[in-house]
Amino acid sequence: MRIAIDVMGSDQGPQSIIHGAAKAALHHDNLELLLFGPSRQIVAELSRLPQPLAAATSRLVVCDSHDSVAQDATAAWALRHGQDSSMAQMLRCVAGNGSHGSADAGVSAGNTSALVALSRRELGTLPGISRPAISTAIPTRNGRRCYLLDLGANVDSPARRLVDFAVMGAAMAQSVDAIEQPRLALLNVGAEATKGSRSVREANTFLRRYPAHALFDYQGYAEGGDLFRGNLDVVVCDGFVGNAVLKSSEGLASMLIERVQAVFESRLSGRLASLLARPALKRLKNELDPVRYNGASLLGLSRIVVKSHGGAHAEGFYYAIVRAIQEVEHDLPQQLVQRWQTLP
Amino acid sequence: MRIAIDVMGSDQGPQSIIHGAAKAALHHDNLELLLFGPSRQIVAELSRLPQPLAAATSRLVVCDSHDSVAQDATAAWALRHGQDSSMAQMLRCVAGNGSHGSADAGVSAGNTSALVALSRRELGTLPGISRPAISTAIPTRNGRRCYLLDLGANVDSPARRLVDFAVMGAAMAQSVDAIEQPRLALLNVGAEATKGSRSVREANTFLRRYPAHALFDYQGYAEGGDLFRGNLDVVVCDGFVGNAVLKSSEGLASMLIERVQAVFESRLSGRLASLLARPALKRLKNELDPVRYNGASLLGLSRIVVKSHGGAHAEGFYYAIVRAIQEVEHDLPQQLVQRWQTLP
Repeated sequence: MRIAIDVMGSDQGPQSIIHGAAKAALHHDNLELLLFGPSRQIVAELSRLPQPLAAATSRLVVCDSHDSVAQDATAAWALRHGQDSSMAQMLRCVAGNGSHGSADAGVSAGNTSALVALSRRELGTLPGISRPAISTAIPTRNGRRCYLLDLGANVDSPARRLVDFAVMGAAMAQSVDAIEQPRLALLNVGAEATKGSRSVREANTFLRRYPAHALFDYQGYAEGGDLFRGNLDVVVCDGFVGNAVLKSSEGLASMLIERVQAVFESRLSGRLASLLARPALKRLKNELDPVRYNGASLLGLSRIVVKSHGGAHAEGFYYAIVRAIQEVEHDLPQQLVQRWQTLP
Repeated sequence: MRIAIDVMGSDQGPQSIIHGAAKAALHHDNLELLLFGPSRQIVAELSRLPQPLAAATSRLVVCDSHDSVAQDATAAWALRHGQDSSMAQMLRCVAGNGSHGSADAGVSAGNTSALVALSRRELGTLPGISRPAISTAIPTRNGRRCYLLDLGANVDSPARRLVDFAVMGAAMAQSVDAIEQPRLALLNVGAEATKGSRSVREANTFLRRYPAHALFDYQGYAEGGDLFRGNLDVVVCDGFVGNAVLKSSEGLASMLIERVQAVFESRLSGRLASLLARPALKRLKNELDPVRYNGASLLGLSRIVVKSHGGAHAEGFYYAIVRAIQEVEHDLPQQLVQRWQTLP
């Protein structure tokens, strides 16, 4: 298996990306990783890899690429000026159009808008899908995870696009996570059929009539609080709403952990605090930081692309690669196409 | 000051409402509270009030009302069948149209959709406002609070309605919280001007051109994560988004506190846990549970109405009454009207 990596665009710099990639190669025997970025910098980082990561160097291929997409670049800028960026070259490799052979999937921690726009141009979407959607698995109360989509690739989504998200999210839960009949809901402001925006009500009507051939188990409307309850596998919403929910959840979780930490450190002695509170809170922080520790999938493209959190450290980037590996193993785009053909 | 209270509709039953009301009367000398609900039940609760709450009984007036609005009733049901409910009678009292004289404000822990619909009918909206908005103050990193609106009274809000929310939120922060020039932002999926839904982009254009006469300090777009940062006083969004953000935040905060509790209880002995972890976490939970401990204001009505959380205990309901008192003291509807007149 070959996976193309965009080394640029992370808030943590190329080092964390390269460490994450080396860890993935170390843990997956038949994996080759193509690293797109300034070759001199990559080579320097590779030469400094500590043991045991250094053992993976032979399966990390340097693919020189000088340009990069800035974190604050717009999608329009990326489409116009980003053709030689590490991100675009990584994607061309995934499309099989680059000078480094083809890759089975691509991973980037760079600018999301640029990644969506360039992926769409370089890879194209699956038949019947106009734009990719972004999805990630959020942690829930009982330890199960719930896929939320879209997370910002689409705003003002009409009903039909919400239905597309439902089919894609369910296909992902079914094929990658082996959930036979994913429990799926539409995010709304209340449980009654008369509530909500027009597109959500129309999508609800469509999903209720959807043929019951075991693609998903439609549960109707969910409210924001239901996301973390653990009794739903897929929750569908417009990208504006999903983005606001995900980012506010990240902000709240990080504020909460900080506050808990402050409360305990003010009450426990320094030594007791470091023994008891800090490790427990650190673990919790990792568990609860969804995108940073999972990666987000771009769904509906002809090939597999995973977006790692811009603030991800090596460990977070490693998980984004693992996510890409899982999607390759289950041939996710093919699974999506098959399910599409069952749509009325 | 007289405040009308809907005793029905709380998940905790009338007792918590009556205890919260008694506490408010005890702490505010010139306050009279009119309790709308089944008189027999209210009288029984009043006779059982413990000290020191019982001392307030003389300023709690029983206003008999047999019907009530169920928590799962629709707005349409409430408008058609709810005219004799405790909620509608409480609102008529606020309008000065009831048989118990008039009240300066109303508070209910009941069904939000019904409260919005009945308030609109019984009280009417201010000139130029078609529908009320719901707002609450959410806790932030530095201990300051940030008003978020709308929280679900309006979905599919056009640009002009978002601008109305901005003016109302700023007026509230300015008059009730004495923030001279509230820092205000529009919630969006990114900071760039080209991003976001059409209505948000149009509202941004309008707010940027808004005359700089010190009503608010427009900061442009904010993302979900900025809500908790403490550098914004008012964040404006469509009700669908605000509702999803608020409810998911509530769900996440309660999941997080549970997890932290579980982690500490598994690591500390029972005695140590109850000494150290439980009180600290309880305090944190209260601080972070926005609506439950603040109440949410219905803005844009001709009179003051505060919605307490359906799950609020006596303490939470007490704070909702305190919120109503503050809004009466600052004559919030009049403040809104004045600011409206400055709008181009």
